Amino acid sequence: MEIVFRRFLDFIYEDNPFWDLTTEALVSENINVKAAIVAREDGLVACVEDVASILRRLGLSVKIVVGDGGYVKKGDIVMEITGNARTVLSIERTMLNLLMHCSGIATTVRRLVNRVREVNSRVRVAATRKTLPGLRYFEKKAVLIGGGDTHRLSLSDAILIKDNHIKIVGDVAKAVRIAREKKSFIHEIEVEVTNASDAIAAAEAGANIIMFDNMTPEEVRRAIEELRKRGLRDRVLIEVSGGITEDNIIDYAKLDVDIISCGWITLSSKALDMSLEIIEVLEK
Amino acid sequence: MEIVFRRFLDFIYEDNPFWDLTTEALVSENINVKAAIVAREDGLVACVEDVASILRRLGLSVKIVVGDGGYVKKGDIVMEITGNARTVLSIERTMLNLLMHCSGIATTVRRLVNRVREVNSRVRVAATRKTLPGLRYFEKKAVLIGGGDTHRLSLSDAILIKDNHIKIVGDVAKAVRIAREKKSFIHEIEVEVTNASDAIAAAEAGANIIMFDNMTPEEVRRAIEELRKRGLRDRVLIEVSGGITEDNIIDYAKLDVDIISCGWITLSSKALDMSLEIIEVLEK
Amino acid sequence: MEIVFRRFLDFIYEDNPFWDLTTEALVSENINVKAAIVAREDGLVACVEDVASILRRLGLSVKIVVGDGGYVKKGDIVMEITGNARTVLSIERTMLNLLMHCSGIATTVRRLVNRVREVNSRVRVAATRKTLPGLRYFEKKAVLIGGGDTHRLSLSDAILIKDNHIKIVGDVAKAVRIAREKKSFIHEIEVEVTNASDAIAAAEAGANIIMFDNMTPEEVRRAIEELRKRGLRDRVLIEVSGGITEDNIIDYAKLDVDIISCGWITLSSKALDMSLEIIEVLEK
Amino acid sequence: MEIVFRRFLDFIYEDNPFWDLTTEALVSENINVKAAIVAREDGLVACVEDVASILRRLGLSVKIVVGDGGYVKKGDIVMEITGNARTVLSIERTMLNLLMHCSGIATTVRRLVNRVREVNSRVRVAATRKTLPGLRYFEKKAVLIGGGDTHRLSLSDAILIKDNHIKIVGDVAKAVRIAREKKSFIHEIEVEVTNASDAIAAAEAGANIIMFDNMTPEEVRRAIEELRKRGLRDRVLIEVSGGITEDNIIDYAKLDVDIISCGWITLSSKALDMSLEIIEVLEK
Amino acid sequence: MEIVFRRFLDFIYEDNPFWDLTTEALVSENINVKAAIVAREDGLVACVEDVASILRRLGLSVKIVVGDGGYVKKGDIVMEITGNARTVLSIERTMLNLLMHCSGIATTVRRLVNRVREVNSRVRVAATRKTLPGLRYFEKKAVLIGGGDTHRLSLSDAILIKDNHIKIVGDVAKAVRIAREKKSFIHEIEVEVTNASDAIAAAEAGANIIMFDNMTPEEVRRAIEELRKRGLRDRVLIEVSGGITEDNIIDYAKLDVDIISCGWITLSSKALDMSLEIIEVLEK
Amino acid sequence: MEIVFRRFLDFIYEDNPFWDLTTEALVSENINVKAAIVAREDGLVACVEDVASILRRLGLSVKIVVGDGGYVKKGDIVMEITGNARTVLSIERTMLNLLMHCSGIATTVRRLVNRVREVNSRVRVAATRKTLPGLRYFEKKAVLIGGGDTHRLSLSDAILIKDNHIKIVGDVAKAVRIAREKKSFIHEIEVEVTNASDAIAAAEAGANIIMFDNMTPEEVRRAIEELRKRGLRDRVLIEVSGGITEDNIIDYAKLDVDIISCGWITLSSKALDMSLEIIEVLEK
Repeated sequence: MEIVFRRFLDFIYEDNPFWDLTTEALVSENINVKAAIVAREDGLVACVEDVASILRRLGLSVKIVVGDGGYVKKGDIVMEITGNARTVLSIERTMLNLLMHCSGIATTVRRLVNRVREVNSRVRVAATRKTLPGLRYFEKKAVLIGGGDTHRLSLSDAILIKDNHIKIVGDVAKAVRIAREKKSFIHEIEVEVTNASDAIAAAEAGANIIMFDNMTPEEVRRAIEELRKRGLRDRVLIEVSGGITEDNIIDYAKLDVDIISCGWITLSSKALDMSLEIIEVLEK
Repeated sequence: MEIVFRRFLDFIYEDNPFWDLTTEALVSENINVKAAIVAREDGLVACVEDVASILRRLGLSVKIVVGDGGYVKKGDIVMEITGNARTVLSIERTMLNLLMHCSGIATTVRRLVNRVREVNSRVRVAATRKTLPGLRYFEKKAVLIGGGDTHRLSLSDAILIKDNHIKIVGDVAKAVRIAREKKSFIHEIEVEVTNASDAIAAAEAGANIIMFDNMTPEEVRRAIEELRKRGLRDRVLIEVSGGITEDNIIDYAKLDVDIISCGWITLSSKALDMSLEIIEVLEK
Repeated sequence: MEIVFRRFLDFIYEDNPFWDLTTEALVSENINVKAAIVAREDGLVACVEDVASILRRLGLSVKIVVGDGGYVKKGDIVMEITGNARTVLSIERTMLNLLMHCSGIATTVRRLVNRVREVNSRVRVAATRKTLPGLRYFEKKAVLIGGGDTHRLSLSDAILIKDNHIKIVGDVAKAVRIAREKKSFIHEIEVEVTNASDAIAAAEAGANIIMFDNMTPEEVRRAIEELRKRGLRDRVLIEVSGGITEDNIIDYAKLDVDIISCGWITLSSKALDMSLEIIEVLEK
Repeated sequence: MEIVFRRFLDFIYEDNPFWDLTTEALVSENINVKAAIVAREDGLVACVEDVASILRRLGLSVKIVVGDGGYVKKGDIVMEITGNARTVLSIERTMLNLLMHCSGIATTVRRLVNRVREVNSRVRVAATRKTLPGLRYFEKKAVLIGGGDTHRLSLSDAILIKDNHIKIVGDVAKAVRIAREKKSFIHEIEVEVTNASDAIAAAEAGANIIMFDNMTPEEVRRAIEELRKRGLRDRVLIEVSGGITEDNIIDYAKLDVDIISCGWITLSSKALDMSLEIIEVLEK
Repeated sequence: MEIVFRRFLDFIYEDNPFWDLTTEALVSENINVKAAIVAREDGLVACVEDVASILRRLGLSVKIVVGDGGYVKKGDIVMEITGNARTVLSIERTMLNLLMHCSGIATTVRRLVNRVREVNSRVRVAATRKTLPGLRYFEKKAVLIGGGDTHRLSLSDAILIKDNHIKIVGDVAKAVRIAREKKSFIHEIEVEVTNASDAIAAAEAGANIIMFDNMTPEEVRRAIEELRKRGLRDRVLIEVSGGITEDNIIDYAKLDVDIISCGWITLSSKALDMSLEIIEVLEK
Repeated sequence: MEIVFRRFLDFIYEDNPFWDLTTEALVSENINVKAAIVAREDGLVACVEDVASILRRLGLSVKIVVGDGGYVKKGDIVMEITGNARTVLSIERTMLNLLMHCSGIATTVRRLVNRVREVNSRVRVAATRKTLPGLRYFEKKAVLIGGGDTHRLSLSDAILIKDNHIKIVGDVAKAVRIAREKKSFIHEIEVEVTNASDAIAAAEAGANIIMFDNMTPEEVRRAIEELRKRGLRDRVLIEVSGGITEDNIIDYAKLDVDIISCGWITLSSKALDMSLEIIEVLEK
């Protein structure tokens, strides 16, 4: 939490390198307010507990009305905030930007999860490392809250052998073998492939997870069939990624896949609209 | 530039708190590569020059093929990068995330600018402070590159009196008067209003800019008419904001307004898809 | 406030990279003290509220006796501090250095403001960007507290076209036109000139503020006359700067100018002497 | 040097949280300039070598014309700078603020040293810990360059027992004894006293340095006499401090003292005026 | 690498908050030296390539004589450094402290690996999270260089259910089930147990790795036997940890275990002695 | 303390770049625990008060059972901690790593001090600058707590002329003379020598402390004899360093030396084993 707080202070500083000219001019130090964060559209809220902790650290009282993963309708209050008016007003925008962004991601993830669950009770919807620089902690938290899978948090928590690695090493099997030898026992090996033969080579060489990248549902189906024929299907997890949209995700979900991942969940996320309304002005 | 570089190092660190397990295992230190950043959809590229400077600081050679504000079609090369394979691979994702995000914003801004220009050659499309925390520098740069107006960069560069301020101060005119007295001569005063009478009060009290917030085009038209009747229209700039979408922006652009601003340009931006392809593997 | 606190921690660290050898050796952890910050000369105090907030964050109790902008006479108590003796003693010097510096600036500004007000009730005394690196927040706050105008807080909050810019662009009018076109609608344009014809060119091109730099009062008077003849005087604010001292400031104040700015207010400021006296030693 | 560079980047960032609006608008990326830093009054330059190293790190070419400790007359060139116009213009103010401040300190120190040397070839002029927060490295360097003595760099490099410590411990001799026992063998003990008897107690208890604080020259003379009578004079160094001005410093210098220290050298320093002039505009 | 460099700058700053008093006084700016880092005892060198990169960034020329993982005998040169004498001398200690620490770790790891390999060609020697705060990057690199396994790099790269977690959750199997449900597919689950029945419960619940903590070799042998009986041995990796010393490690290595981990490799490491010798003094 | 806290946050962040995967999955936010830090071997505890302050800042209740410098036997409780289970579990390792490291150093120092005191009541056991990068504050504190002497805290608090400096300057006496002239009066001069004649030269030139480096006890004895013959012994402190082990330290302690310093106290320290045991699980 402390680290999240420090990062939030950096965000405030970005928006306020000197002081809030407007608030400093118009609002005297001895004014307190009661304010509410209000949803302006329907969706899932996320990172509200992180934000509440931050606000408390800044000396504000917070009452969470709808917590992480809760569903709000337009007009619902998400949290109530009471405290120094200058503090509230000068962090309003930063706080909303963060909450709206995270809630937007969680809302999208939940919608995708609900969709795929209709046809496949086991498949997971995962995010990728296509996150907005500096915001990965918050975005991955939002993915979890929405019911998704974080996937790798960073380059330092698993092996994922991609096309560019294979271009350098020469072939898939060799890459997997080297990785197995050099990696820690604690880390998994995933391999990105674009066809069945590489999938087979990767699985045979000992990869734990196969990612089918940018393949059509039919191509994926056939590749899985090839793995199954060779008794390899159950030795690996199967992820599909690349070109998966809200429209076609159901076609992938119907396959025998374990994970469906989408970079746009985080990199092209749509914010969930919220606003901060002052409910009452209190003299201190 | 140095500060941008430091921020980029923070972004790399977020993605790589220890080391890139995959690349460290598979790619030896003495491999160099030639790689290309390739557009995977059509759009405007942005922040490519900032990114190129960063890459050079990291010891890579960069040739910019399409510079800031240039238009790319799917498959076009944006820049070529030559240098140490480990460096290239371990920053690939961070670099793409940033470029794709900024280019997405610039592409959106340019599309909006082109749209409004068809009916109003003078109106500006502006961003707001609804930016993703930690990314304001890059997002505002992208807005400029797309042909938009940055609006306030932070709380410290102009006065913008909003509904919450007015709730505390009591009335619009009083708020403007206090702000005029306390602010530096170098800073402007903008006031957010939701009706004609507040707009008149603000203009009469000496506001430099009036922002009509969450009003329909017809409401805005009538409010401007009221200002004009009182000889106030030319003493202020007029901004419209709130609820403006790609669909209705043209309706606002047809009015006698100076600025149209949209928070979603930055807060719900859609990334422009790009990838990094290794073209050639070179031993050092 | 949080950011100010972080910066203050950096200041403490500068003075105390390991520990306070003297206090650690002589003062045991369980001693509390009551201490007073005492003015050792007459003047205006500044940043006392910022410092008090910081001290409270460090676990000390603080009673402000004379707040920001209050006047103290030699021997007056500015604030009383109660708490852990080690904390008090190890931050004493840093706290005093900051308070003395800010109070010195505010005292100077107030004296200048009082002086110019005798002959011109409207003119403002402004600081410049000639501030001590790392201390701008505090110095600009002190200027405000003294009754002065902060002027630009940074390079990112207004356009100020100076001689070196004009040398590159070629001429004043062109520079103003380019700036008007490229800048955000929210930012003002000021132009530094050294003669009447450039002032006229700048005003005609649409500058909002004209700064007469390093000109004698008589030269300024004549330049303003030229602007007035052309109906330009009331379309701009007029600032004078450069070579203005406590001795000659009155000569500039008598002119029809809006702002008088002096770099030495912050860059050659004289500290207001204060000391910290332990009043009572308390066992915990 | 690296650390100095990092600190300078912080200073640039303070002045430029987003970008230099003026330079970005008016000066295109492909312009180079040749510029000179010119003294606008006579004095000693300081920290010019630190600043030159920083500028080189920022990609500029620098020719130092007058190095640290060199004397300039009004109009003399201190250094010549060639490179990217945007870089030069956006750091101009920060660079000048630092150079002017340090050179002002060095100029003052040199003047004081010259003055005291006329009557006492052995006495040192020292600064104190009354430095501007965040600038101690630069200010202490400037003191050295001016021919002064830095005194303690921080609370962590020597023991200095002051009035507030003695109030807590109870008496001078006891404080010195405790400090001797607890401190490292590598650190000295200095004691601040305001009368002869405390000076005697401190010296007898083993203090290495006695500081006479806020005493008149005559009081100091008599106190030293008392030390000499007891054979203690040559076992300690003697520092005088407090209330020493340019006017009365000579009276202290005539005494048998080793060090004269003045807080105002750094805390109320007067900057040495300089400016940056563009000499030539070069297309890249 | 950039991040490693930044961290090294922090280390230099810790040792040098102002300047190197000795070097600044004795060594003029225009002296260059050629120096050698010399081993003062036999062992494996580690992090020499990281250190070399850092030195190059500081403007020094470096020739690596013995690279990472190379074996040196007392008196052997590890690397040669040429460049500015002040730079070399002021970073000498920091550089040696880091190299000696890392090389000490690598030397220990290699010795343990060689020992266990005599009886078990497959077992890995692993470090733990018992690393010195702030040094994990370097210590884990040294472990790799010595031929060991890094184990978890942080709390964010795998699940490791320990006694304290189980106390809270209630029982092993439940803990494993919850973790399986909540964790990402990309992360492994390891469980720390102290007896066979918990090992069985963990394995049956789907743990990937079982760690036998603080058990005698005989206890471990019997527990593995129990796993084997139930057909669980090959579904998990087996780690032993706790109380393993240089003396008894061979007894554990003889068992059917996959990983032997020791916290003291990093937390009680013995440095490999090295020194820096100036070989030649060169005027610039 | 604040700075120590900030550094501890960095340590936590190193171990937890995103979140503690295990604790986040298994332990819900509303669980509190009571836990104890228990010694697993006999020794002296150190930095327990610094750690307790940090834990309190993180919202935990702490009861120190054995404070800094207290002696614990295997099984003794060092401190009790009550509070949020997630917080406790996610900082457990970092906190233990720091405490175990510092306590190990203090334990070693105390043992050495006790040993030398048997033969020499006056000699001090000192650490050196051979500390682990980033941990100097904690390690030097541990040395003090163990009864040792910190020696220099950094390069900025005393002059220590070493072999490499003398190689550059040319001879010992010259080096001492230059240092005396250039250094502040507040800093001491120590000189490292390897024979009697250099010791004599250094002492005659005015060094305050002579360090005999890498000499046998007999060589040191003779060198001191030479100093004594010339009446120089009592004008300097004498330190011995280099090659001093637990086995031979007593041979040095029997000599007429003032300080015995050992780099391995900090650079090859053995941690004092401790663990954290959850005593009670409490619902909030």
